[in-house]
Amino acid sequence: MANASQHTLLEAIAVSGPISRAGLAERTGLSRPAVSMLSRGLVEGGLVLEDGAGIGARTRAGRPRVLLSLNPCSAYFAGVYAAQDPLQLVLTDLSGRVAARSEAPLPDTPEALATTVRDAVTRLRAAARISRGQLRGIGLALTGLIDWQRGVCLHAANLGWRDVPVAALLRRATGLPVTLDNDANAVAVAERLFGPAREVLDVSVVVLGDGIGCGHHLGGRLQRGHRGGAGEIAHLMVEPDGLPCRCGKRGCLDTVASRRAMLDAARAAGLAARSPAELEAKASGGNAAAGAILRRAGGALGTAIAHLIQIVAPAVVVVADVEGGAGLLHRAVLDAVAANVLPELLAATTIRFEAVGRDVWARGAASLATRAFLAGADAI
Amino acid sequence: MANASQHTLLEAIAVSGPISRAGLAERTGLSRPAVSMLSRGLVEGGLVLEDGAGIGARTRAGRPRVLLSLNPCSAYFAGVYAAQDPLQLVLTDLSGRVAARSEAPLPDTPEALATTVRDAVTRLRAAARISRGQLRGIGLALTGLIDWQRGVCLHAANLGWRDVPVAALLRRATGLPVTLDNDANAVAVAERLFGPAREVLDVSVVVLGDGIGCGHHLGGRLQRGHRGGAGEIAHLMVEPDGLPCRCGKRGCLDTVASRRAMLDAARAAGLAARSPAELEAKASGGNAAAGAILRRAGGALGTAIAHLIQIVAPAVVVVADVEGGAGLLHRAVLDAVAANVLPELLAATTIRFEAVGRDVWARGAASLATRAFLAGADAI
Repeated sequence: MANASQHTLLEAIAVSGPISRAGLAERTGLSRPAVSMLSRGLVEGGLVLEDGAGIGARTRAGRPRVLLSLNPCSAYFAGVYAAQDPLQLVLTDLSGRVAARSEAPLPDTPEALATTVRDAVTRLRAAARISRGQLRGIGLALTGLIDWQRGVCLHAANLGWRDVPVAALLRRATGLPVTLDNDANAVAVAERLFGPAREVLDVSVVVLGDGIGCGHHLGGRLQRGHRGGAGEIAHLMVEPDGLPCRCGKRGCLDTVASRRAMLDAARAAGLAARSPAELEAKASGGNAAAGAILRRAGGALGTAIAHLIQIVAPAVVVVADVEGGAGLLHRAVLDAVAANVLPELLAATTIRFEAVGRDVWARGAASLATRAFLAGADAI
Repeated sequence: MANASQHTLLEAIAVSGPISRAGLAERTGLSRPAVSMLSRGLVEGGLVLEDGAGIGARTRAGRPRVLLSLNPCSAYFAGVYAAQDPLQLVLTDLSGRVAARSEAPLPDTPEALATTVRDAVTRLRAAARISRGQLRGIGLALTGLIDWQRGVCLHAANLGWRDVPVAALLRRATGLPVTLDNDANAVAVAERLFGPAREVLDVSVVVLGDGIGCGHHLGGRLQRGHRGGAGEIAHLMVEPDGLPCRCGKRGCLDTVASRRAMLDAARAAGLAARSPAELEAKASGGNAAAGAILRRAGGALGTAIAHLIQIVAPAVVVVADVEGGAGLLHRAVLDAVAANVLPELLAATTIRFEAVGRDVWARGAASLATRAFLAGADAI
């Protein structure tokens, strides 16, 4: 469809739009005539919109000032999160907005997953009135060790998969390009494309949910690390001789600060709480046990984030808190970061909490496909 | 001198040489005729050597198989480490070999540093019989916050400097291009250019000396992080409520595992040890206090490296141990890494100890200039 230089423009418009042609030339290093010619093709193809920057806005040369932005409705993407039951699916437009969503029982084989996704995507398209041609790709997020370049799930303990070429299976079932990555990287990509930190080059995204995940963009590039192992912060040791973890070690962050760990601790303390938000409510009502659980979790997460800051030095750390409660937990995180990071580095780093829903993973998965589409990257 | 494509070749030959023209074409994506033409210019200019790959070695097409490598004596670089007294200087050739070295009292102003370096470099050139034209650049390594792109030292607590345009000062005094970076990044660059891990794309280098530094190459690129803050592992909290640190916090890695911390602990225990190697000797002779100091230091360093591995996931972690002693300390590091890293990630990661001398920083500094020369990058 678009050529390589047009993909460069599309990515720049995605991250910086609405943006003028002059701004694009500066950002991409392409000449202004080249930007004009290339963007004309994108506008004519419907992918890019031209907006006047307010009535009467003019460039210094006196011409009307025109800003380019992506046309949200020109392309759609399916995102699939297949790490827990139920399977979650969303259909998003080019701006990351969710056009339709659904759930399905988690299939127990890769082949059944392919069939389930094919049927669910067809239903989602019908619900959102999106034609087959408008759907440009599928993103799949899994928990585990992923070979994203080959589209192979190397190991997913929760699914019992080893060396499953799941992207190829999905592509065969749906006829669409498929992009595969792990769930934390998927959320990091969504933040970089659609989040408030999208113009920041060095950003780490920590997702606090039933488990804890992390992905890094450094210098504007997703850093997966060797064999995709970067961001395994759930298994940082934060409590020497602490609780046993699923991984076989003890005292991992996951045993203290994940949603599951907090609710387990609440149950052990005889507290009836179905979510961290309910724990927050109890704590602010004066329940000391609820407060202690939140402070312990926040302190551990803040210590882990302090390690991350001093090792990687992102400009922004986004903490995407799944149905989280703000309040005491977040304050404990910030206190532990402040106590454990060098003052100069602390002053240079922004910690931003973001309340996200349980569809954060599926939306991240859709953003994988969006990014591949914008970049013209090879999907499986 | 060389053009952009020739610099691409030079970098590839540096990292992968000796290498055939066919190998270079594959590595760089340049066509074989382009590689032939460009490399001819580099051979004629004296920067690159052609070696036969053994008598009678032939390509599949029957031609003699020729390998290209950098000509070590075609260019020289000065490296200056100005973080402690005495100032250390080395002169290295294009292969990183030290041709001459010297020390000088650490000057107390940036201007005095420029004069001292100018004079010392002239003496080093004379000692190594290197002409003015053969010396192609100066690298300067400092401890602190560096704006490497502008060549400005933003803050060096040990020197009392703030916002010093030290690269420009050195350039004016010497007439040579100057590259500035922090000391840990300098050592990481030397490892990537000249070390045994030079072909590894994702490598973290931890330098264990009087202090502890760290630099990361990810995807083959040095990752400095936001405002150059990446790799501050010396200030990871490893002992809750531990010893007070220079930085104002408590329990930092630096208070337990640096050479200085180990020798302080030895003194407090009434042990006469002037180096970690002497502590190792005492420990292997049965001294329990010496053993405890080394195990505590190694355990703390290993825990910090475990954090690093689970956050960044390098393929290789190089621990450059300055005049270190191997033995108990290294075993304690490996034990703590094994106890704290996810099994799958542990199996995928190599920890490599490297015994280095006290000139490791100055050699790293010289490698900054070498890299800038090979890449044709702008130095100040």
